Amino acid sequence: MMTKEDVTMMILSAKKQAGLTWEGIAEQIDMSPVWTHSACMGMNGFPEEKAEALVAALALPQEAASVLAEPPTKVWEQAVPTDPCIYRFYEIVGVYGPTLKALIEEKFGTGIMSAIDFDMSVTKVPHEKGDRVKVEMSGKFLSYNSW
Amino acid sequence: MMTKEDVTMMILSAKKQAGLTWEGIAEQIDMSPVWTHSACMGMNGFPEEKAEALVAALALPQEAASVLAEPPTKVWEQAVPTDPCIYRFYEIVGVYGPTLKALIEEKFGTGIMSAIDFDMSVTKVPHEKGDRVKVEMSGKFLSYNSW
Amino acid sequence: MMTKEDVTMMILSAKKQAGLTWEGIAEQIDMSPVWTHSACMGMNGFPEEKAEALVAALALPQEAASVLAEPPTKVWEQAVPTDPCIYRFYEIVGVYGPTLKALIEEKFGTGIMSAIDFDMSVTKVPHEKGDRVKVEMSGKFLSYNSW
Amino acid sequence: MMTKEDVTMMILSAKKQAGLTWEGIAEQIDMSPVWTHSACMGMNGFPEEKAEALVAALALPQEAASVLAEPPTKVWEQAVPTDPCIYRFYEIVGVYGPTLKALIEEKFGTGIMSAIDFDMSVTKVPHEKGDRVKVEMSGKFLSYNSW
Amino acid sequence: MMTKEDVTMMILSAKKQAGLTWEGIAEQIDMSPVWTHSACMGMNGFPEEKAEALVAALALPQEAASVLAEPPTKVWEQAVPTDPCIYRFYEIVGVYGPTLKALIEEKFGTGIMSAIDFDMSVTKVPHEKGDRVKVEMSGKFLSYNSW
Amino acid sequence: MMTKEDVTMMILSAKKQAGLTWEGIAEQIDMSPVWTHSACMGMNGFPEEKAEALVAALALPQEAASVLAEPPTKVWEQAVPTDPCIYRFYEIVGVYGPTLKALIEEKFGTGIMSAIDFDMSVTKVPHEKGDRVKVEMSGKFLSYNSW
Amino acid sequence: MMTKEDVTMMILSAKKQAGLTWEGIAEQIDMSPVWTHSACMGMNGFPEEKAEALVAALALPQEAASVLAEPPTKVWEQAVPTDPCIYRFYEIVGVYGPTLKALIEEKFGTGIMSAIDFDMSVTKVPHEKGDRVKVEMSGKFLSYNSW
Amino acid sequence: MMTKEDVTMMILSAKKQAGLTWEGIAEQIDMSPVWTHSACMGMNGFPEEKAEALVAALALPQEAASVLAEPPTKVWEQAVPTDPCIYRFYEIVGVYGPTLKALIEEKFGTGIMSAIDFDMSVTKVPHEKGDRVKVEMSGKFLSYNSW
Amino acid sequence: MMTKEDVTMMILSAKKQAGLTWEGIAEQIDMSPVWTHSACMGMNGFPEEKAEALVAALALPQEAASVLAEPPTKVWEQAVPTDPCIYRFYEIVGVYGPTLKALIEEKFGTGIMSAIDFDMSVTKVPHEKGDRVKVEMSGKFLSYNSW
Amino acid sequence: MMTKEDVTMMILSAKKQAGLTWEGIAEQIDMSPVWTHSACMGMNGFPEEKAEALVAALALPQEAASVLAEPPTKVWEQAVPTDPCIYRFYEIVGVYGPTLKALIEEKFGTGIMSAIDFDMSVTKVPHEKGDRVKVEMSGKFLSYNSW
Repeated sequence: MMTKEDVTMMILSAKKQAGLTWEGIAEQIDMSPVWTHSACMGMNGFPEEKAEALVAALALPQEAASVLAEPPTKVWEQAVPTDPCIYRFYEIVGVYGPTLKALIEEKFGTGIMSAIDFDMSVTKVPHEKGDRVKVEMSGKFLSYNSW
Repeated sequence: MMTKEDVTMMILSAKKQAGLTWEGIAEQIDMSPVWTHSACMGMNGFPEEKAEALVAALALPQEAASVLAEPPTKVWEQAVPTDPCIYRFYEIVGVYGPTLKALIEEKFGTGIMSAIDFDMSVTKVPHEKGDRVKVEMSGKFLSYNSW
Repeated sequence: MMTKEDVTMMILSAKKQAGLTWEGIAEQIDMSPVWTHSACMGMNGFPEEKAEALVAALALPQEAASVLAEPPTKVWEQAVPTDPCIYRFYEIVGVYGPTLKALIEEKFGTGIMSAIDFDMSVTKVPHEKGDRVKVEMSGKFLSYNSW
Repeated sequence: MMTKEDVTMMILSAKKQAGLTWEGIAEQIDMSPVWTHSACMGMNGFPEEKAEALVAALALPQEAASVLAEPPTKVWEQAVPTDPCIYRFYEIVGVYGPTLKALIEEKFGTGIMSAIDFDMSVTKVPHEKGDRVKVEMSGKFLSYNSW
Repeated sequence: MMTKEDVTMMILSAKKQAGLTWEGIAEQIDMSPVWTHSACMGMNGFPEEKAEALVAALALPQEAASVLAEPPTKVWEQAVPTDPCIYRFYEIVGVYGPTLKALIEEKFGTGIMSAIDFDMSVTKVPHEKGDRVKVEMSGKFLSYNSW
Repeated sequence: MMTKEDVTMMILSAKKQAGLTWEGIAEQIDMSPVWTHSACMGMNGFPEEKAEALVAALALPQEAASVLAEPPTKVWEQAVPTDPCIYRFYEIVGVYGPTLKALIEEKFGTGIMSAIDFDMSVTKVPHEKGDRVKVEMSGKFLSYNSW
Repeated sequence: MMTKEDVTMMILSAKKQAGLTWEGIAEQIDMSPVWTHSACMGMNGFPEEKAEALVAALALPQEAASVLAEPPTKVWEQAVPTDPCIYRFYEIVGVYGPTLKALIEEKFGTGIMSAIDFDMSVTKVPHEKGDRVKVEMSGKFLSYNSW
Repeated sequence: MMTKEDVTMMILSAKKQAGLTWEGIAEQIDMSPVWTHSACMGMNGFPEEKAEALVAALALPQEAASVLAEPPTKVWEQAVPTDPCIYRFYEIVGVYGPTLKALIEEKFGTGIMSAIDFDMSVTKVPHEKGDRVKVEMSGKFLSYNSW
Repeated sequence: MMTKEDVTMMILSAKKQAGLTWEGIAEQIDMSPVWTHSACMGMNGFPEEKAEALVAALALPQEAASVLAEPPTKVWEQAVPTDPCIYRFYEIVGVYGPTLKALIEEKFGTGIMSAIDFDMSVTKVPHEKGDRVKVEMSGKFLSYNSW
Repeated sequence: MMTKEDVTMMILSAKKQAGLTWEGIAEQIDMSPVWTHSACMGMNGFPEEKAEALVAALALPQEAASVLAEPPTKVWEQAVPTDPCIYRFYEIVGVYGPTLKALIEEKFGTGIMSAIDFDMSVTKVPHEKGDRVKVEMSGKFLSYNSW
């Protein structure tokens, strides 16, 4: 059976050979770059028509479409990530986690921001003292139930 | 010696008694709510005039100003946070960390987003299917050195 | 400042002295026993009128009401619980976690059961070969976003 | 020697090719979907006649029947699961574990709910504000021995 | 409120002052030494009449009886114990765990030995090459449910 | 070179094909079932004549005898075992470890039970309320040296 | 697809066969030895012309150049390194970490030394009581943002 | 008995009251700032005359001198430090550890840099694109023994 | 009740005031310095007459004698010690553990060196290239049982 | 490329076929058994002439000599070793680590025993109550630098 890992490898290979970018691929299937990359890594499941679109765009074998549409099993192996680019986000959660919690509660009441009904973008913001990375996250507020 | 923990306790007590919000406090010292909360928690150091402003706004003892201005030692005890509101952000880093890395590299070249030259905001976005939490982060892109 | 831990101690003490049960307390404030216990332990925040009702029912000091209404910070210290009664539930998640995931996805599509918009009950089911504990959980299905 | 992992792979492959669901397979061998899935994953051992039934239903090689009937070795590798669908159940145990313990003790006396003499179901409950996942667990109450 | 830790301290103090042994105490309340010690340590709950018997035997304050009768919360802090006397038992579980599992399954079918419906004794067996410690455990066999 | 893992695989295969039990194999080499299983798993080294006896009984290749006689390297990978049958023994050590220590010291003086000069048995004890697993361990008492 | 690990293997093999040193290789591509080694290990990405230079110097296959230029994913598997040569540096961070922090803050204000805009060298300093290793690090000071 | 922690507190208090810097204190006792800070934190032991000098300089109680001269017990509690300023050095060891090892071996032969016969300095290097932190370490090369 | 920690504090205080060394104390009670120190730290139990001797030598309160004679609970909190002097021994076990095992087995047969019937000494060996620490351990060989 | 692991395998195979002991091999290359075993395991690097001697003695392929002479990367995977023979040494470090530290400091001043300029031997000491394992370690004393 073809696995999500197999399909990820095919995508990376096709992307490199065709000289594509994630943004370019995302555009071809009319989805955002963040979602497209994470789904290609096997961290999100494709809606069927998007799976078909990707298979067409990258000339993947037809069997890949059903694999892309399977629900993902989201596993990461490092509880504390070591890569500096990812660690910095971990650090932000460590430093600002209680702050995010306090402000969400102040604005919305007792509850959380969903990581499921969620979207995110990454943008480049030119700046004279050095360009800046802008990350925007948006998640549905979920109120704790009392029963 | 008065410690940052002592001052945090004084702030929380004054805030409760005066019925203030973090947004209200932030406004009084003309800083953002995210930065204000994290600095009050001892996770950031106050510029001196902001320390004075806070001491005045909350009627803290004068000694508190110099403590607020000390550099913070940023410590968190749970490598994996358990509180659901904070865990969801940890989960986002686990699931989307490699995606953030790939897109930053695609847009900027090899490097990272700084967590030091950094700012963040939290906003409430009304939505008919349920209000949404919007978190915006912005950090300077830092390019890896080759030497 | 009175903390949630202080109030929990007061509740346990009042409960023991009055010879109450959690079911009895829950009934007095017209909430379920599971929610009532967890909120008294500081793991959930009380709606204001419920906080007032508990303060009245157990003759707690008035200041306790506002503490009970504060958002909880949910912390547990043992990543793997040692108490046998709690460990068995951890074991069930370890053994049946992938099964719960597979069946939820089969019935609902790709997504999860919310642990926030969530309720639970515990019931005693008499049985001739030995009484049984029945635990019922219900959580809103949350579908992963594609964007 | 054929292992439980080998047989799990055969089952997944046969299931996919035949377009079956876990509920459909469970029905064919007259067992519940939860038990069926977990036993197919190698987390439970099949009674012999059920092993034969599954081998027949999915046209597995005959040798698979004895493998399915072997006692399972229940191993999970992540002390804290990362997949969001499974993590939420872990979170429920963390948040509500002491509550489950307190209510079981209040209703039954000092003891635990068995995770061995145990069954579970997953149901879809339609709801206007969004369908709900209902999980029902039932385990024999086991009283601590005093001797 | 008096806690189980408080009562354990009182028992140890009374035991030392009166020059008692755990076997002697166990005899006075007509229970086994293993159970008596573990219950005095707060790792098991006393049946009410045994709690009364212990309070009488050691002249503890009356309030201690109800505390001894409370359900225990069984917590140990070292996942791998360091004390050599306890570590050797941990080592036995590590080395012989799969053997215990294989032989229990061979004799009883698929299932486990209960650690709840369980008793244990420690005996001194004189031996010319050096006395031996004999530990006998007995637990109810629990068969895995299929449903 | 043939390894202990290789020989374990050969033993399991021969045992299955011949429909043997561990007790049957133990009897053929005139050793106890506990020791026989653990040595076949590579957790104990065979005396030479027992290695020859096993090779003969199961028709293993002659080279296996010297491998069986090599000293074992005892490794287990899970500091806290997940399989329920093994976990229960871990739990017993967690709950009753301090009790075993206290009673051994009371009976023997300061020291430990050896896990090296050690033997163990597993027996089935029929019981009307459900059969019981009886585990008997015996280890030489080792007194701490003072020098 | 050729991976960074593949290219590292090719480099090590070419280096051994040609009897080169890291300093020699570094000189050929006109970079420092520290950077050259770490980039050859896959811990830094090559600027394109340096990748070409290395491919030429060591007669690597042309495809290796693009792999060398890919952004690195920096992963290390031992949170606490065991090799004595590396552990000593870990120990220095443990012992002198708070000192580095205090002196950086005293000299620069609240902030950190960048590990990204960073360079390092290793030199041999002859000394009569035994030669000394000199390690020089230089990183841009990054000031914490207040916003 | 006065402990090293007590003396550290006295030093910090005296330093704050007198408005001193670590460099200033170091100068007064004619030692380097890095060593002075770490010894004041209890991470190094003072030679007796330096202990006397510090006691005099900061007007500490005389008993402090003998405490400052005691050998330190070097303990740090976070295997992976969370404070960003310290973490960056940890990251450098993770990323460049194998490089430091390879270059030390290339220059000196098989061995390590001592962390005991060791010294370090921190300097501010003005730079037009932003000032830089320069850290210089020097440790005696220790060759592995063959015997 | 006086604890072993209390008595350790009294010993350290008496030792400092009287300007004693561990060797001096050991001589006074006619035991070795290694055993004496470890027993004073609470890591070994005193034979009664040695406890009396220590109480007399250091003028401890009489109650201390019975506390010194209690069996120790040997606990250490750092699985990997951070103090460099202790870490080096941990490193030796990591590097040479398999070697110790292989040579013990080669000389004695399958078994271990006892850490209970055990003694140790530390000696200073003058050497022109720098004095050496000599550590001698001796433990009874324990042969694995076959049964 | 031939790795250290490959050469270790060749050595073990040659040793078994020739019926050699580690002591015998050590004698052939005129080194100690402890060093010889550890270097054959890849935990120490061979001086060139010793590598040649081993290659000759065991008839290894010539390429093995240069591999044996490479600096070792010392890695162990279990922070707490499970094999009883190795664990006992770990336990000794846990129990007696602070004692070793205290006595080294008392005899030598503030510093450590080197694990690099280090040697060790294992001897069998016949004893009427059971033979004893004698382990002798010797390491250069390294004094902490003050600067």
